Amino acid sequence: MPELRKNPVTNRWVIIATERAKRPSDFLQSDDKTNNNSSNCPLCPGHEKMTPPEIAAYREPGTLPNEQGWWVRVIPNKFPALESSGDLQKAGLGIYDMMSGTGSHEVIVETPDHHEPIALAPLKQVEEVLWAYRDRLLALSTQSHLRYVLIFKNHGKAAGASLGHPHAQLIATPIVPKLVMEEVEGSRVYYSFKERCVSCDVLKQELAMGDRIIEENNTFLAYEPYASRFPFETIIAPKKHDASYAFIDKNQIMDLAKILKNTLWKMHQLLNDPPFNYILHTAPFGESVKNFFHWYLEIMPRLTQVAGFEWGSGMYINPTPPEVAAKELRAIGVPDALQVQKTN
Amino acid sequence: MPELRKNPVTNRWVIIATERAKRPSDFLQSDDKTNNNSSNCPLCPGHEKMTPPEIAAYREPGTLPNEQGWWVRVIPNKFPALESSGDLQKAGLGIYDMMSGTGSHEVIVETPDHHEPIALAPLKQVEEVLWAYRDRLLALSTQSHLRYVLIFKNHGKAAGASLGHPHAQLIATPIVPKLVMEEVEGSRVYYSFKERCVSCDVLKQELAMGDRIIEENNTFLAYEPYASRFPFETIIAPKKHDASYAFIDKNQIMDLAKILKNTLWKMHQLLNDPPFNYILHTAPFGESVKNFFHWYLEIMPRLTQVAGFEWGSGMYINPTPPEVAAKELRAIGVPDALQVQKTN
Repeated sequence: MPELRKNPVTNRWVIIATERAKRPSDFLQSDDKTNNNSSNCPLCPGHEKMTPPEIAAYREPGTLPNEQGWWVRVIPNKFPALESSGDLQKAGLGIYDMMSGTGSHEVIVETPDHHEPIALAPLKQVEEVLWAYRDRLLALSTQSHLRYVLIFKNHGKAAGASLGHPHAQLIATPIVPKLVMEEVEGSRVYYSFKERCVSCDVLKQELAMGDRIIEENNTFLAYEPYASRFPFETIIAPKKHDASYAFIDKNQIMDLAKILKNTLWKMHQLLNDPPFNYILHTAPFGESVKNFFHWYLEIMPRLTQVAGFEWGSGMYINPTPPEVAAKELRAIGVPDALQVQKTN
Repeated sequence: MPELRKNPVTNRWVIIATERAKRPSDFLQSDDKTNNNSSNCPLCPGHEKMTPPEIAAYREPGTLPNEQGWWVRVIPNKFPALESSGDLQKAGLGIYDMMSGTGSHEVIVETPDHHEPIALAPLKQVEEVLWAYRDRLLALSTQSHLRYVLIFKNHGKAAGASLGHPHAQLIATPIVPKLVMEEVEGSRVYYSFKERCVSCDVLKQELAMGDRIIEENNTFLAYEPYASRFPFETIIAPKKHDASYAFIDKNQIMDLAKILKNTLWKMHQLLNDPPFNYILHTAPFGESVKNFFHWYLEIMPRLTQVAGFEWGSGMYINPTPPEVAAKELRAIGVPDALQVQKTN
């Protein structure tokens, strides 16, 4: 069973993942390559038996679970960082605090097509992926021992992906993660001074200034944040205030699919299919944050290295000003063909 | 001039390093290799003219600055993240806050020998390096616009080193970095409850439990922290409470040199010269933290990848329990020959 342990100085929780246990010799082998061969890919159609039984799927009527016929499929991670079985146990060990590694670790397979990442997928498929994120968030929010669901994507080996087949992951935690708590607290303090959401104020200023905007549509804005930590770091945020991704509506899903796909396509073109992570920042469960927390999606191309200064300071050195990055991304045209909706 | 910009939600400062500016095409080239060829190494003796003029050096009597004869040499970073010229300027931009990138970015060349990292260097040379760290910390602490000096090492390409010659770096900042502030605040809260330093309590418990200890001597303890974020993450802390590395005395320097060298040598043996970062955590300037902040050195082998979950949560998944890592490192014997002091 994995274990959560708390740093007594910084109050940061760490997952000691015994199920993924590694010995020194495991680190001496040369890096595993990303598996990008569809013939032995466990996420490809026809290989459903290579994964644990599915948790959920969108599939053709008449097809059976764990068989072909799906277009989005959610499965447990084979090497989970947190485990979904067992009750949450908490304990002290002298000065230290720990709890059992109870939670959930899922893989969201985003397409049956091994070679069709979101940047290249039909808009309709991107919408389905976005609905799947919401469904899993809602499903897990009813489990009383869970406090947060982090939905994220690792694309490319340098971003931590071990499988080339397009997929996202979800880790549900029994605590509110440190960085989420920081955003909650930062937004709460601003609201207590101004009675306004800080992210709503940021969006207003970005729309007025314009030099960091990549794309805008009816309900979403894609922009490079003023204090970007990384080159081409991008935020996609709903223009209307909402604390949780769970509240997204049909029109927003269509707009988000379009702006997400366009943004990833621009990065794909400009930076030659860069490795990237994206992360859905949404409100923790059961917290009264709805007035001041503003959900968003953060995309981080992995182009620079994090080293001693960043690890020691929590500060980042970004060699590409966000205004420059935004200008480059704006300049990449999106062909009309990419905008056409294809049906599954 | 580089610029510091603050994230208005998390209050995290970022350095937008215009002097290191990169365009999209810079990220498309294959990664630069670490320069590990001493014939064109700018840090090797005889190549002093390849670097900016030295800031300080320990050198043989009668030798001149920027010539051979040094055994430790401090130079400005050729591509500084922060600049030492100019006054500190602060400004607002609507909702945003910024300041000029005023500070210092230095390189501490730790030996004339291109192929002698601390793990393999004579103890006496390690002591000299540790004195140089202290000298620079003291020298910069007198500059009133600086709030912190972060001393760190990147060893190996995966840890961010671009030069193979053994060296550390120092970045002096006009703000107290976020992670340092977190440690200050966490320690302050604990002290306000208990009237004791949290790190002193941690050291007492580690000494009593013993299963995470790597090595102990008169004045230092090397151990794997209970909530290790990374495999083989190691802390070397003074057993006696002190807030700042600036107060280290001669006996402590000798003990620290020995335990640091032994620990790095054990990692070198067990993990085959792994890439690693180390970071000196010391008290910010001018803060009244002396009762509750406890300085330490943190060593982080770079064996695992940081991906979407870590970036989104601030939590880490560690596949090697610290008790297992400590046992493996303890088991590596240190030959007596390594303990012998050689003189320069």
